[in-house]
Amino acid sequence: MRAWHFVGTHKPFERVDIPEPTAGPGHVVIDVKAAGLCHSDVGILEDEKWLDLMPTLPVVPGHETAGVISEVGEGVTDWKVGDKVAVYPMVGPMGYGVNGGWEDRAEVATEALVPLPEGISFAQAAAATDAGMTSVGALTTGGVESGMKVGIIGFGGLGQIGARVAHLRGAEVYVAEINEDVWDRAKEAGAVKVAQSITEFKDDELDVIIDYAGFGTTTADAVETVKYEGTVVIVGMGKLEATLNTYAMILGRVTVHGSNGGSKEDIAESMKYMASGELSPLITEIDFEEIADGVQQLVDGTARGRLVAKVAD
Amino acid sequence: MRAWHFVGTHKPFERVDIPEPTAGPGHVVIDVKAAGLCHSDVGILEDEKWLDLMPTLPVVPGHETAGVISEVGEGVTDWKVGDKVAVYPMVGPMGYGVNGGWEDRAEVATEALVPLPEGISFAQAAAATDAGMTSVGALTTGGVESGMKVGIIGFGGLGQIGARVAHLRGAEVYVAEINEDVWDRAKEAGAVKVAQSITEFKDDELDVIIDYAGFGTTTADAVETVKYEGTVVIVGMGKLEATLNTYAMILGRVTVHGSNGGSKEDIAESMKYMASGELSPLITEIDFEEIADGVQQLVDGTARGRLVAKVAD
Repeated sequence: MRAWHFVGTHKPFERVDIPEPTAGPGHVVIDVKAAGLCHSDVGILEDEKWLDLMPTLPVVPGHETAGVISEVGEGVTDWKVGDKVAVYPMVGPMGYGVNGGWEDRAEVATEALVPLPEGISFAQAAAATDAGMTSVGALTTGGVESGMKVGIIGFGGLGQIGARVAHLRGAEVYVAEINEDVWDRAKEAGAVKVAQSITEFKDDELDVIIDYAGFGTTTADAVETVKYEGTVVIVGMGKLEATLNTYAMILGRVTVHGSNGGSKEDIAESMKYMASGELSPLITEIDFEEIADGVQQLVDGTARGRLVAKVAD
Repeated sequence: MRAWHFVGTHKPFERVDIPEPTAGPGHVVIDVKAAGLCHSDVGILEDEKWLDLMPTLPVVPGHETAGVISEVGEGVTDWKVGDKVAVYPMVGPMGYGVNGGWEDRAEVATEALVPLPEGISFAQAAAATDAGMTSVGALTTGGVESGMKVGIIGFGGLGQIGARVAHLRGAEVYVAEINEDVWDRAKEAGAVKVAQSITEFKDDELDVIIDYAGFGTTTADAVETVKYEGTVVIVGMGKLEATLNTYAMILGRVTVHGSNGGSKEDIAESMKYMASGELSPLITEIDFEEIADGVQQLVDGTARGRLVAKVAD
């Protein structure tokens, strides 16, 4: 069957043909329908630190996967051939410790399976497993719920989903985004106010601020803007450190959470809103054979929205 | 009756004689027995920002107060003359928005009253209302409980109480303190390990780290030392900012809480351990007339332990 291999840092992904997997005990095999590409797939090519997650090379990358179960292993009772599923990537983790989705068929542990709702495409489901999970996971980490005032910093790939789902959860959403070109889209997503900087919402007494940009200064601004006993969540890694006003944190009893990934529930929530049409992140579909080119688009910054490879119909 | 007045920033406290208070509705008057001195009493002399908390001047300072109820106001049914009480300072707040404890008799709202347990001195009770509350409040903020591994940064005034109460709560306590002269006392307080830096406990997988020093670098070290999904609490204000590794915070899903003050329950817990003899912070008693001199000792750094003024026998 067709697959892509990661063979080592600073080496291109290799398009290979490998034997088909079989379903071990507690596992299923899925026919992969859609497999997403992510900036961390660029990361593994460039930064050796990711090798810590990969005890065995080569490995099939791809941690955004949706497909249909084609074989069930011993002891599997809750899933059957024909079930449409997305894969929770943090088991394995997929594409690092175990083979990922850039292949025709993938063996997956049942604890990683999330059922697809009616009305969602495989490409959307694939995008829900990482961009969706991470965006919604940050809202979950911050305890975002109906009636809260929620600040969103950065209306990019993750922030768009975060802002939209915060609105759909019933929160009042305030977006800080330096690129004014997307302000209208932020308002369409449900933002009650949009500004250049989160500090402009100081008087709005935000309960939670999610920093999807993570440029250090954005987190510092969030700490000084959130209300007394408020919560700031850092997800974005625009920079890898932030100088925070601890005096404000102490007097304001502010909490700052680091958040990455999320839960199967966060994936399911993303898929629910995609299925209903209320959440429509921009997705560009490419062919399976174009995956290496797609990664190059991510390197070059020319990709539009989330890139998802169509593996089969 | 005798009192001290704060009349304005950069002006000395004034020893005055003022009319006795009476107990308004929902209030009591207490005969003050012990009134603590705190570094923030130095702060109000030096920094105008505290004026924000003081709508009316002059005001009687003192937010560490214990005494005996001598009068109850209209509608007060849960308290009676003769009850021994400590005062929760965050109502008012005491010594800022309402008159504090540096006077013979003080009017106090009943929601600020905490009953004294048997076996505690008034001086200890006074110390419990701020040093005790703040130290224990940070443990509460961090969710410290039996069986946890807890790092304590700084074995000074607050850290000593924090380390001891964490141990009494059943936690395994790891103390980081640069002054090796107090390492033996840290071990006597129950620490299983003592080191110069919290980073030396990286392999111990600490659940919670409380930074009672707050020197910026100490908080940064804590963030990089605490275990996956661990919690760091900042209480100390050694510096007013910290540069934190947000990459480590995000990947490690670390939470950082700012904490100040605490609750009536935190005061009650401090007093419980003081009454049983298990918690004995160093207290130096001074005379009521020596309060201004005591504040000068705090300025000079010559005070030994907590200074508490004896107001009456």
